[in-house]
Amino acid sequence: MVDSGALEGIRSPTLVVDRMKATRNIRRMAAKAQASRVRFRPHFKTHNSVAVGEWFRQEGVSQITASSVEMATHFADNGWQDITIAFPVSPREFDRVFELARRIHLEVLVDSIESARLLVATGGECSVWIEVDVGYHRTGVPFDETDALVQLCLVLAEGAPRILLRGLLTHAGHSYQAESTEEIRHLYRDSVSKMSIAREALSRSGRPDLEISVGDTPTCSIVERFDGVDEIRPGNFVFYDLQQLRLGACTEDDLALAVACPIVGNYPRREEVVMHGGAVHLSRDFTTAPDGTTVFGRLAFPDAVAWRVLPAETYVASISQEHGVIRGEIDVLARLRVGELALVLPAHACLAANALRNYVTLDGHLL
Amino acid sequence: MVDSGALEGIRSPTLVVDRMKATRNIRRMAAKAQASRVRFRPHFKTHNSVAVGEWFRQEGVSQITASSVEMATHFADNGWQDITIAFPVSPREFDRVFELARRIHLEVLVDSIESARLLVATGGECSVWIEVDVGYHRTGVPFDETDALVQLCLVLAEGAPRILLRGLLTHAGHSYQAESTEEIRHLYRDSVSKMSIAREALSRSGRPDLEISVGDTPTCSIVERFDGVDEIRPGNFVFYDLQQLRLGACTEDDLALAVACPIVGNYPRREEVVMHGGAVHLSRDFTTAPDGTTVFGRLAFPDAVAWRVLPAETYVASISQEHGVIRGEIDVLARLRVGELALVLPAHACLAANALRNYVTLDGHLL
Repeated sequence: MVDSGALEGIRSPTLVVDRMKATRNIRRMAAKAQASRVRFRPHFKTHNSVAVGEWFRQEGVSQITASSVEMATHFADNGWQDITIAFPVSPREFDRVFELARRIHLEVLVDSIESARLLVATGGECSVWIEVDVGYHRTGVPFDETDALVQLCLVLAEGAPRILLRGLLTHAGHSYQAESTEEIRHLYRDSVSKMSIAREALSRSGRPDLEISVGDTPTCSIVERFDGVDEIRPGNFVFYDLQQLRLGACTEDDLALAVACPIVGNYPRREEVVMHGGAVHLSRDFTTAPDGTTVFGRLAFPDAVAWRVLPAETYVASISQEHGVIRGEIDVLARLRVGELALVLPAHACLAANALRNYVTLDGHLL
Repeated sequence: MVDSGALEGIRSPTLVVDRMKATRNIRRMAAKAQASRVRFRPHFKTHNSVAVGEWFRQEGVSQITASSVEMATHFADNGWQDITIAFPVSPREFDRVFELARRIHLEVLVDSIESARLLVATGGECSVWIEVDVGYHRTGVPFDETDALVQLCLVLAEGAPRILLRGLLTHAGHSYQAESTEEIRHLYRDSVSKMSIAREALSRSGRPDLEISVGDTPTCSIVERFDGVDEIRPGNFVFYDLQQLRLGACTEDDLALAVACPIVGNYPRREEVVMHGGAVHLSRDFTTAPDGTTVFGRLAFPDAVAWRVLPAETYVASISQEHGVIRGEIDVLARLRVGELALVLPAHACLAANALRNYVTLDGHLL
């Protein structure tokens, strides 16, 4: 149920989460992981919230992923005891990493001989994954560079048993560029096949014990079964957003995060409405409509039980630091009077959540 | 002088400011305002820092601009007694606005009869500017809608003397789309001419006392004299950035803000380097190189007295939440070894500063 008082009290841009939908999203992904008998280690960077983290714990989650040492430390401070930092370990943060690894079970990523040597040389203790590149070309050892992978294993082995090599990890971020769900299914099979090639090569070199970890919301949402892997690490699925909707990774009914933005100007002559809600609240990330339009957000109106997503014709068309400009259907714009709230479904939930941090739930709780 | 220890201590993405250059930028703009006998009311949203604010105070600044009630309150809490919030006043924040207006001299913006009526109805006390649209088409009453302007004055007059109308204010944000400095000079003359038309119309309607306030860094940097206005409110000029450089509003030597980003991966085979520095640090804002390339940042190396800006061939080519990918000259990339720091000159200084907040100065002070 929507507590209209919860929204009425909003004075400046505020995250609004539909807890019922977020919980359903968590439950669905957890069930799918369980059915495939893979470890579910959701990425917490999307919500970056201790309170939302508790919703995961209630669904049986105890192992999580973070994107920085700072974020991992924050969750460790709030009772999370098993965290992977899915970002190449940065030598400048080794002190923070090992400080944290003394308190909880911590897993980090390496993808270069240099980092591995520096890590081993510290004398510290932690678990490590080798990051593998299966086509995104951001970080990771290319899956077919067997010599580099073997070399990396050897360097890490010098640190054993302090440094414990867990396996091979990848983020197939190129799924965000896919044009169809069929392409995303193909990409999952392709990624797993490349990871298996890398694992086989290392198995022949004396490491038959390595696991495979994958994780990105588009593939984890679209494939039915997680064959060939040991762990999944999706994050965005808890809220989903317009980018995921465009990819077919979710439906409008799965969108669980909005940003409530006060309307500050209504300009009927040019058919635009201006809201308090800009780059510092929604980020400058966008999605692209089928006709090529740049979309920073779409609109929803609250109703008695949740919110109702409005047709794509009404959207946030431009954004500056504090302002957002809404264009769209005249009837909708007419309802957005000065002082009213627009519920904006963000293009990219992770960046909006990171920018604002504090949530209100539709049923009236401050998180 | 560069305190190399100040940079050596950096572990994760951190704002680095060259205080000497920032002070020179402040001094130059303050002198130009003084020579034109206009009020200098710099926008503090760019740095959003109490410490950087003190550098302005040392140059004689006592009146400032903020972009939100929250930001204005923060500066009021730190000794600033005269603040304009250059954002249409939001009815949902009236309580905060009037609470602040009881403590300091506060000026706010209105651009609609609706907002003006609601504001007058509160019974609160503050100064008001009518925001005028001279071509940016974001907020403001179009300069030639004389009836609307007159009507707005009448509504505000009902609140006198509690509500004190100061004048007409504009932000000519379309200067950011200009193709040349000549176009920006033209745009300044055009804006001032439109503001004068609006002022004349109101003067004939019995308001001969209204001031004109303008302010955007491109025009304020490029024009020599601020003829025809009473107040300027530029903000970005304190640091400048790549967007301003592209517009000809500054030189490379004026760039006073960098983000120090630790290198976490070097991929010679694909001629790329990956840094810890992504959308949550630099924002996703970009500038466009003459050949159409999207540029999220450029690189600099520290030397003994400041930093040396590297040729445009080396740049941040893509960005995700925590990662940034650097492409460029092989010699430069080779120097960016894992564990080293890249000094990244951001495309948009305001958003980078907003994301990170804490500064280190080149001479070793934490702000």
